[in-house]
Amino acid sequence: MPIKHKDLLGIKELEKDEIILILDTAESFIEVSERPIKKVPTLRGKTIINYFHEPSTRTRISFEIAAKRLSADAINFSQSGSSASKGETLLDTVRNLQAMRADILVMRHSVPGAAHFIASHLEASVINAGDGAHEHPTQALLDLLTIRQRVNQLEGLRVVIVGDIAYSRVARSNIFALKKMGADVTICGPTTLLPHKSESLDVRVSHNFDEVIPKADVLMMLRIQRERQAKMLLPSLREYSQLFCLTPKRLAKARENLLVMHPGPINRGVEIDPSVADGPFSIILNQVTNGVAVRMALLFLLAGRSGIEKNPIAA
Amino acid sequence: MPIKHKDLLGIKELEKDEIILILDTAESFIEVSERPIKKVPTLRGKTIINYFHEPSTRTRISFEIAAKRLSADAINFSQSGSSASKGETLLDTVRNLQAMRADILVMRHSVPGAAHFIASHLEASVINAGDGAHEHPTQALLDLLTIRQRVNQLEGLRVVIVGDIAYSRVARSNIFALKKMGADVTICGPTTLLPHKSESLDVRVSHNFDEVIPKADVLMMLRIQRERQAKMLLPSLREYSQLFCLTPKRLAKARENLLVMHPGPINRGVEIDPSVADGPFSIILNQVTNGVAVRMALLFLLAGRSGIEKNPIAA
Amino acid sequence: MPIKHKDLLGIKELEKDEIILILDTAESFIEVSERPIKKVPTLRGKTIINYFHEPSTRTRISFEIAAKRLSADAINFSQSGSSASKGETLLDTVRNLQAMRADILVMRHSVPGAAHFIASHLEASVINAGDGAHEHPTQALLDLLTIRQRVNQLEGLRVVIVGDIAYSRVARSNIFALKKMGADVTICGPTTLLPHKSESLDVRVSHNFDEVIPKADVLMMLRIQRERQAKMLLPSLREYSQLFCLTPKRLAKARENLLVMHPGPINRGVEIDPSVADGPFSIILNQVTNGVAVRMALLFLLAGRSGIEKNPIAA
Repeated sequence: MPIKHKDLLGIKELEKDEIILILDTAESFIEVSERPIKKVPTLRGKTIINYFHEPSTRTRISFEIAAKRLSADAINFSQSGSSASKGETLLDTVRNLQAMRADILVMRHSVPGAAHFIASHLEASVINAGDGAHEHPTQALLDLLTIRQRVNQLEGLRVVIVGDIAYSRVARSNIFALKKMGADVTICGPTTLLPHKSESLDVRVSHNFDEVIPKADVLMMLRIQRERQAKMLLPSLREYSQLFCLTPKRLAKARENLLVMHPGPINRGVEIDPSVADGPFSIILNQVTNGVAVRMALLFLLAGRSGIEKNPIAA
Repeated sequence: MPIKHKDLLGIKELEKDEIILILDTAESFIEVSERPIKKVPTLRGKTIINYFHEPSTRTRISFEIAAKRLSADAINFSQSGSSASKGETLLDTVRNLQAMRADILVMRHSVPGAAHFIASHLEASVINAGDGAHEHPTQALLDLLTIRQRVNQLEGLRVVIVGDIAYSRVARSNIFALKKMGADVTICGPTTLLPHKSESLDVRVSHNFDEVIPKADVLMMLRIQRERQAKMLLPSLREYSQLFCLTPKRLAKARENLLVMHPGPINRGVEIDPSVADGPFSIILNQVTNGVAVRMALLFLLAGRSGIEKNPIAA
Repeated sequence: MPIKHKDLLGIKELEKDEIILILDTAESFIEVSERPIKKVPTLRGKTIINYFHEPSTRTRISFEIAAKRLSADAINFSQSGSSASKGETLLDTVRNLQAMRADILVMRHSVPGAAHFIASHLEASVINAGDGAHEHPTQALLDLLTIRQRVNQLEGLRVVIVGDIAYSRVARSNIFALKKMGADVTICGPTTLLPHKSESLDVRVSHNFDEVIPKADVLMMLRIQRERQAKMLLPSLREYSQLFCLTPKRLAKARENLLVMHPGPINRGVEIDPSVADGPFSIILNQVTNGVAVRMALLFLLAGRSGIEKNPIAA
């Protein structure tokens, strides 16, 4: 089954069977990165452009590694040192990239909807690598894949997403993804960091972390963005941590096969205690590992719409 | 016929038959970028360094894509984060790159003549990717190629270059190139943006855009650099646009097979109306597409002086 | 013989036979960069990350070229535009890179010991590309290789290292390397730029450059870091140059087969006269050329611990 969309813009646009297709494809790519020679010729001669308007380490490098392990030509460019400082519109910039016969544009941008806007004007495929506080679909897909490796079914799985929900593209994409897969999602955090209209998200809401921990199968801890404090949304990091930091003491009340996740970068001691981040329940680094496989799968599925090799993982 | 020069420094140094050689070679490379697998092994094991002192999106990426589609190893470096901040001379920097056995150095620099100076001290080939207000030869070559795809002959072709001529390396390189190919060139703009000694350029001069439009076969609209206004060379962008912006109204007076070009990045609404930039006369994105082919041709011709494959576009 | 260490952190940790192994391996790689097709498939499918916290031209590019000539996938990232600005610890950043199955992390960092710290927490190999004023082992190895190409034996060779010794990782690594190989090392400079406890380094100390020149087989001129002047460690660059700049006049007193070295970037006219830097005694650019070979050797030896091709230089 080929993927239906030209682009990967958000989880909201995906149907459940498309999500499963992506996860299944990603699963087959995991093994490529465990080989002594981590490289397949699948996307040889394809041009993939990583266009990052916002700073990023893990996402940009994860996409670049994914592209290179598929033998694609990967081109990086970040906003600094580019034509935007010369007054060029975003659309003109990406049309130029398409005119150079880029196959896939991976784009991170601070404006919500930027990737959607661009995709609607291009024939080239666009992958949204994060657009403002809107969506970060590859993060949600790698999170799903990491959970799916460890539980029998996502249906009914009790997932609690903790922290800065209102302003988090990771939270939004994960809520969409988890709900589509039938999980039972609770968002948990101080009132100022939860969305005003959470009903439309079809999730449970809690302000009491200690209360929800015992029943959770998965805890997704979100990064506290320190700039929230300046905006008066957080009284103090210390107070936040007292109520919402995942500590060993809190973990003691959890189910014994709890999964602890974090999209990174981690503020150790703020939203998660270092001993928990590095402890036995943590699958944080598995998320990172799976990120490469999910991105390889997406590059393959989108570039593959024009017909490429039968066996994408043949060396 | 091999190319006579070690370097591509400016159009001024090229003879007509060399220009034709480059365009013919570029034409054969266009098709490579239209294949499903956009890659040939022609420059495998060659090292190409993109050394950009000034910000650039399209030129740097175009060269990087060109190098990668030829299977060369492409290395980027920009001034920020480099040794110049440690007081190293430009010549020492590039001698270091040559000592690492770089084959071709693609260089953009703010100082006119920088590429010529460097080339005279290196055995490695140098491609000038823009040196101050002096030359931007690959832009002129891709412009020629784009025109040549659409007209029967360049001899006698009436080309009007509009805007900031005095400070434009694009204008200078295009004037040299078009004159060598026998075109009839007019430069058009406000007095403050035209060169003082335009006689030596052997071009017609006009300050009246509306007057020259009806007879033009090609209009090359140049980017207005907003910083000119600060230097009092432009009274206001608005006034400039009233006189020199290519609008649909002005276009109505043009020949029906007019070609509209722009080297980018575009200031939409300043030197060109959005509907014209995106309209049927515009070949702006073809210029960008051909840029990759021209750069592939140059990398091949210069690296090929040491003898490489017979068929450069064999997959 | 395989290399014993997982990492290359400093010369201090290496035994003499390991240094010889690295130099011998590097010698076999020199020829690869002299071929028309400068590329071998030795590290195909390996992922090498160049993580540079401090500005660098030659070292980063040298590592990138080395990786690409071995067909490895090379990923660059510098501190700016990364997660450190988001409060992530260095250890979390590199654990992420390891989770993406990076094989080798090449790291430059301003903090002495940073590479050692990281290496002790990773299974991936770490190469120290300079850590504060501590060590720069690949520079010392390429210096040794460059000397070894020109002299019969390092044992007893009289090497004078001149300039800013106290704050130079290049000086430290070279002192360790030269002493292990049996050379007779003198450090020479103004008191403020020599280490307080030079006894522990087992080197001769001189404040009189003119006195030591006649007996030297090798002069290693170090870069004067201009910021020292601001810290009052240098009275003035002019005074420094009068006493320690290697001028033609000083060179006249030297042995006729003297070797003049400099790690770059050069401050021409400060620590070395331009005519000497470019003169017949200078092997400065040979150092740069050998840098690529030494780095290819190290990438091969460290990545090769997991077993790769028999003949690393087969095309």
